[in-house]
Amino acid sequence: MPNFQTVRGMRDLFGEEAQAFTSIISKARQTAKLYGYKEVITPVVESFELLSAKSGEEIRQRMFVFKDLGERQVALRPEFTASIARLATTALKNEPKPLRMFSVGSVYRYDEPQKGRYREFYQSNFELMGSSRPEADAEIILLTDALMRSLDLCGYVFKIGHIGVVRGILSQEGVDEKTQNAILQRMDRKEYAEAFKLSPTEKCRSMLEGLLQLKSDNCFETVKKIEAYVATYEKARAAAENLGEILKLVVESGCPVQFVEPAFARGLEYYTGMIFEIYIPELDIALGGGGRYDRLIELFGGEPTPAVGCAHGIDRIALALQTQNAAVGVERRKRILVLAVNESLKVESLKIAQQLRQAGLTVEFEVMGRKMAKALEDADKRKVDYAVIVGERELKESAVMLRNLAKREQSIVPLKEMAEKISS
Amino acid sequence: MPNFQTVRGMRDLFGEEAQAFTSIISKARQTAKLYGYKEVITPVVESFELLSAKSGEEIRQRMFVFKDLGERQVALRPEFTASIARLATTALKNEPKPLRMFSVGSVYRYDEPQKGRYREFYQSNFELMGSSRPEADAEIILLTDALMRSLDLCGYVFKIGHIGVVRGILSQEGVDEKTQNAILQRMDRKEYAEAFKLSPTEKCRSMLEGLLQLKSDNCFETVKKIEAYVATYEKARAAAENLGEILKLVVESGCPVQFVEPAFARGLEYYTGMIFEIYIPELDIALGGGGRYDRLIELFGGEPTPAVGCAHGIDRIALALQTQNAAVGVERRKRILVLAVNESLKVESLKIAQQLRQAGLTVEFEVMGRKMAKALEDADKRKVDYAVIVGERELKESAVMLRNLAKREQSIVPLKEMAEKISS
Repeated sequence: MPNFQTVRGMRDLFGEEAQAFTSIISKARQTAKLYGYKEVITPVVESFELLSAKSGEEIRQRMFVFKDLGERQVALRPEFTASIARLATTALKNEPKPLRMFSVGSVYRYDEPQKGRYREFYQSNFELMGSSRPEADAEIILLTDALMRSLDLCGYVFKIGHIGVVRGILSQEGVDEKTQNAILQRMDRKEYAEAFKLSPTEKCRSMLEGLLQLKSDNCFETVKKIEAYVATYEKARAAAENLGEILKLVVESGCPVQFVEPAFARGLEYYTGMIFEIYIPELDIALGGGGRYDRLIELFGGEPTPAVGCAHGIDRIALALQTQNAAVGVERRKRILVLAVNESLKVESLKIAQQLRQAGLTVEFEVMGRKMAKALEDADKRKVDYAVIVGERELKESAVMLRNLAKREQSIVPLKEMAEKISS
Repeated sequence: MPNFQTVRGMRDLFGEEAQAFTSIISKARQTAKLYGYKEVITPVVESFELLSAKSGEEIRQRMFVFKDLGERQVALRPEFTASIARLATTALKNEPKPLRMFSVGSVYRYDEPQKGRYREFYQSNFELMGSSRPEADAEIILLTDALMRSLDLCGYVFKIGHIGVVRGILSQEGVDEKTQNAILQRMDRKEYAEAFKLSPTEKCRSMLEGLLQLKSDNCFETVKKIEAYVATYEKARAAAENLGEILKLVVESGCPVQFVEPAFARGLEYYTGMIFEIYIPELDIALGGGGRYDRLIELFGGEPTPAVGCAHGIDRIALALQTQNAAVGVERRKRILVLAVNESLKVESLKIAQQLRQAGLTVEFEVMGRKMAKALEDADKRKVDYAVIVGERELKESAVMLRNLAKREQSIVPLKEMAEKISS
């Protein structure tokens, strides 16, 4: 039988990389606690109908879709929001608002694999449902900032925009929703020429083109420019004003929003308001992002419920931290090896190992049946800190030989003092 | 659009149930640390060929199998061991032995859903590779015991056996491996009549029947009985002796093994040695189990490597804890609501919320724009502990109004003392 491999686009995580992942997940969970978000766990397998409802054409075509043994058309989730919205319209529909929910886990997209991009990747996801106010939008951005700070990530940049600006222009110019979606998807990919070609009128096209030119170094100034530019487009102007309010709350609370993007678009079709992304300029990848989606809950059969949310890419954050040489989560616990000088002391030495674990220490028990010299040599190679050597003579005096492998020192230590001596 | 539902056999976890799950997972991770097991994260999607190689017919037929967009025959993992064995024969093949690995996550089997049984469920998984000695088998059982203890689970029972006893008899009676597998699978389901029918000879059948009768109340005595019963079956006798050694280590280290099952079998085909299960008698479901599988690594193209491992069912452990009314993981953190007396203080109050979060407190910020009386009434209903009310007058003196909602008391507290006052 040949060596088996991972399926193309999938990968294993181990060693420091796995430690970084679990550590980022643990910080995300901590952030959820600080902001009052309750954890929910939804299935990886959902109905294709649910996942494709408002995900957008691009993601729809890259889903892992299949029929289960009961002939149900199912798919692996490409993101969390559809599942959380489903939960909010069913089991949690009578929960008081605002509803704050946190999730973390794997999501699946059939993309072309490349450095840092896999077909299975990990996200932490936050959703805040029930509020249409800028405070809610601000909270989602602030908690994203809090997560990045807690990881000691440097040099990240927030980009913010409002989907209502482009949609407001397009609606007033009579562009139907389907064409709007197609235009926004191309703008998201920065295929502006392609996007503009889809505009039905010259005026509409020039409005979009002009929007792109409004960028400036000062984000409040950019918002003012947008407001003036779309002054005659009522909905677009309201969107720009809303963006200004959110921006004010966020910036004054100490979160460094660097860019307002006047013609910002994101791949998912369900956004209706503020959208944002966080990225590292030198890496040119988004570490996370999100936005407001006020109509999804309603579309899923729930009461009309304004909502805003975000997702953070664990893989990309880990990659960013790695390039910054930040050893996140690489916890250096003291490692202890417990071994007996001979076979007859196996039971006794196992009991001593158990005792040290009960004291909270990381203990490897010698399970290879090696001679002591060999086992100690191996422990030394693997950077074990202490060896607890269980011998008859010491045991008679309720003691063991404790060897500090790095210092090559050893001394007889009473069993009672062993854990404390190692910990100190 | 109608309400969407979860796919049949899948479910959402939220509230206390989700808290119990994350708490059990965190205890499993803690157990891994204490025993020196390093976390590895393998994909949910693996090649069907890998997952079906030695999983056994029953599990093979209940897998979620499909073709990905590249026409690869893939499946959702029904368990972890195949993936970990793959990892051990590829990326980790040169790691020094023993290799101790821990995983946790979701696995998938297309079973008929019933109370406590879903098609997506969660496992923690431990594998110890490189040692054929009884100390290694003992370690896997002891860490299972340690996990259950750390959860304060009561009344669980260990059942232990050795697949080598039945296989040893069958081999010596000339039964081929395929028929052995079929017999063992039926024995696993306690369909003994069906199993015995597959025995090619009368002697073979009567040997298996007799084996079932060897149970006794004392597990060391049962092992002795098995040894005597299979005295002329060399491999079966060696298996029984090995079981005795493991049992001694485990019992003397304080783990309560209650039953030795002479004709014990488990569904997975890869087991070659000791096998065990842990269950709660009143629930009649296994909470976890595992065993030795010395030939899998070799079959997967690696160097011959003895190995032993186990998996714990998070769902079932959560169910068991629930029936024991053990409120695992239901952490009661103080909840704080921050709100402003009027709109103009929104930014200031948001800053104060941020300050409290930096002090490690769980803070909900008023995002609904409600009048103060309404917001406080709602907070009271939702059992929020403290409201931090931000008003102009207090703010001028660098203070806020702190209201204890349960006690219906309030007082003016300087900003600097706020976090400490709430925490105490």
